[in-house]
Amino acid sequence: MIIDCHGHYTTAPKALEDWRNRQIAALGNPSAAPKPSELKISDDELRESIENNQLRLMKERGSDLTVFSPRASFMAHHIGDFEVSSTWAAICNDLCARVAGLFPEYFIGAAMLPQSPGVDPATCIPELERCMREHGFVAINLNPDPSGGHWTSPPLSDRQWYPIYEKMVEWDIPAMIHVSTSCNACFHTTGAHYLNADTTAFMQCLTSDLFKDFPTLRFVIPHGGGAVPYHWGRFRGLAQELKKPLLKDHLLKNIFFDTCVYHQPGIDLLTKVIPVDNILFASEMIGAVRGIDPETGNYYDDTKRYIEASTIVVGSDRHKVYEGNTRRVYPRLDAALKAQGR
Amino acid sequence: MIIDCHGHYTTAPKALEDWRNRQIAALGNPSAAPKPSELKISDDELRESIENNQLRLMKERGSDLTVFSPRASFMAHHIGDFEVSSTWAAICNDLCARVAGLFPEYFIGAAMLPQSPGVDPATCIPELERCMREHGFVAINLNPDPSGGHWTSPPLSDRQWYPIYEKMVEWDIPAMIHVSTSCNACFHTTGAHYLNADTTAFMQCLTSDLFKDFPTLRFVIPHGGGAVPYHWGRFRGLAQELKKPLLKDHLLKNIFFDTCVYHQPGIDLLTKVIPVDNILFASEMIGAVRGIDPETGNYYDDTKRYIEASTIVVGSDRHKVYEGNTRRVYPRLDAALKAQGR
Repeated sequence: MIIDCHGHYTTAPKALEDWRNRQIAALGNPSAAPKPSELKISDDELRESIENNQLRLMKERGSDLTVFSPRASFMAHHIGDFEVSSTWAAICNDLCARVAGLFPEYFIGAAMLPQSPGVDPATCIPELERCMREHGFVAINLNPDPSGGHWTSPPLSDRQWYPIYEKMVEWDIPAMIHVSTSCNACFHTTGAHYLNADTTAFMQCLTSDLFKDFPTLRFVIPHGGGAVPYHWGRFRGLAQELKKPLLKDHLLKNIFFDTCVYHQPGIDLLTKVIPVDNILFASEMIGAVRGIDPETGNYYDDTKRYIEASTIVVGSDRHKVYEGNTRRVYPRLDAALKAQGR
Repeated sequence: MIIDCHGHYTTAPKALEDWRNRQIAALGNPSAAPKPSELKISDDELRESIENNQLRLMKERGSDLTVFSPRASFMAHHIGDFEVSSTWAAICNDLCARVAGLFPEYFIGAAMLPQSPGVDPATCIPELERCMREHGFVAINLNPDPSGGHWTSPPLSDRQWYPIYEKMVEWDIPAMIHVSTSCNACFHTTGAHYLNADTTAFMQCLTSDLFKDFPTLRFVIPHGGGAVPYHWGRFRGLAQELKKPLLKDHLLKNIFFDTCVYHQPGIDLLTKVIPVDNILFASEMIGAVRGIDPETGNYYDDTKRYIEASTIVVGSDRHKVYEGNTRRVYPRLDAALKAQGR
């Protein structure tokens, strides 16, 4: 089977955005804020938003299951305070859980966290545990920069983040390291901030001994790892200068890259440079790049085509990228599939 | 001949660093600051610092000429105010000019600018013009983030930068877009901040119409363009979503990438994806990654080996990457070479 480990609910009914706009309009005046119960979206509306979009494309392209989390750019942790983020995260996670409930064969949830700039990450734990316990989610998205492009939080290696990691170890879940909208005019959200964050997160891990403290902690770095595989020689050399172990020993038991790289040469580079055990199939479909590539006639984000055309990922390696690695990195997903007899 | 368009004076005699430390120690107390005349470095010391380092490696590796600018990580525009940066930039530029004067066959200067966070970039023009007029420099390094990782300046497409661009057009010089040390704990300087800045600068250009306003403006994006070539499909797709022209028409008359990518698969990706006319040979030798790659037995930053081993850059294309493109993008360098009969 083919598991896409990186899908967001980018096609939620407009009522969600309207509710969020009301919440934002009421910032500083909590009594005017909408109640979660005021968001009314029927199961039919959810079905329609999925059947015409992600599910249609999954069937067309031939993927079987998507790890599904709230829309990354809408997390916008920089807006409002912890209460605002907390209410918003719960609503978004609940919608993903409903989608997974309506299409249990096709979607399984990953949680956004109610992060807020300057607020202790430990405050995210109740929502994290609620999503695991009540919704059967299999992963979280962790934003290394809840400020939205101002980078005011400490690096991921800082002990401030450790309570989250302790819970990840306890629940045996990975985190996809994923920022949200940039509110810094320097950084285009999907063209700069996302990729920069991927590179930044990798380097934060490289310079630290985080995985000595958490040997089983697992991070998925999306968008093909930002700039990392392209500059793999630079990173190997920097690790060497810093007297760190070889990257395969220092980081690759804990860090994995997805395949959200939207052209064949990029996928070929990724798969040539990074060990196959560290590559997880993903598309982030109906995301940053929704068009058709005039050079190929296919959707940019139809990443399965690049894997299918690969002369590097062949035979049993293809199974690892499509399914095996993801089952290993997301044990709760593996367990859920086994419970379904898959 | 082989021109390396990206070299910094990373090996300057220690007296330079000592002077800088005294300048920093006197911040807020200008009367205690050292005078530029207190920096004493003899020609013999300069010769030694070059002959044992850059020049030795150029001869060993077989490159002929280096575009030589002050050490990027030492620019540290975030330290002090405009006066501090101004004094420091002049000292550093003068040293590069002296090196070029001592070794006119091997080095030609590029200027750092006395940028300072929150200060109008137009204040850099006197130093820019001094370096062109008095030192015969052929390019500038432009820091898109003088705050050192806080990204408080407007994007490069903002009119605030236009006075610099007007001077670049007038002098017919390119700018290498190069940040300096990160003082934001999130960003490792050479492992994250440099690459992020490259990606960010490219995307700032992509979303703007800067090159409509300055059709002859030329930016060299170093470190192989950050994440850009690896994600070329993403950038083509984003341009398409933004209703911009094809990247080759929208940006590639004005943006060039260097070859500071420290492994063969990265260079192969770069040269496969980016048109050969937009690739300039460079190594940034004795820079971020100074070690020997145990996988090859060669220096990571000996980028000529990757070009020599390339099956993509062959025949006349190799001449373009090594020399022709750089002569075209740096017309003052071309003129200086011609004046030498080269």
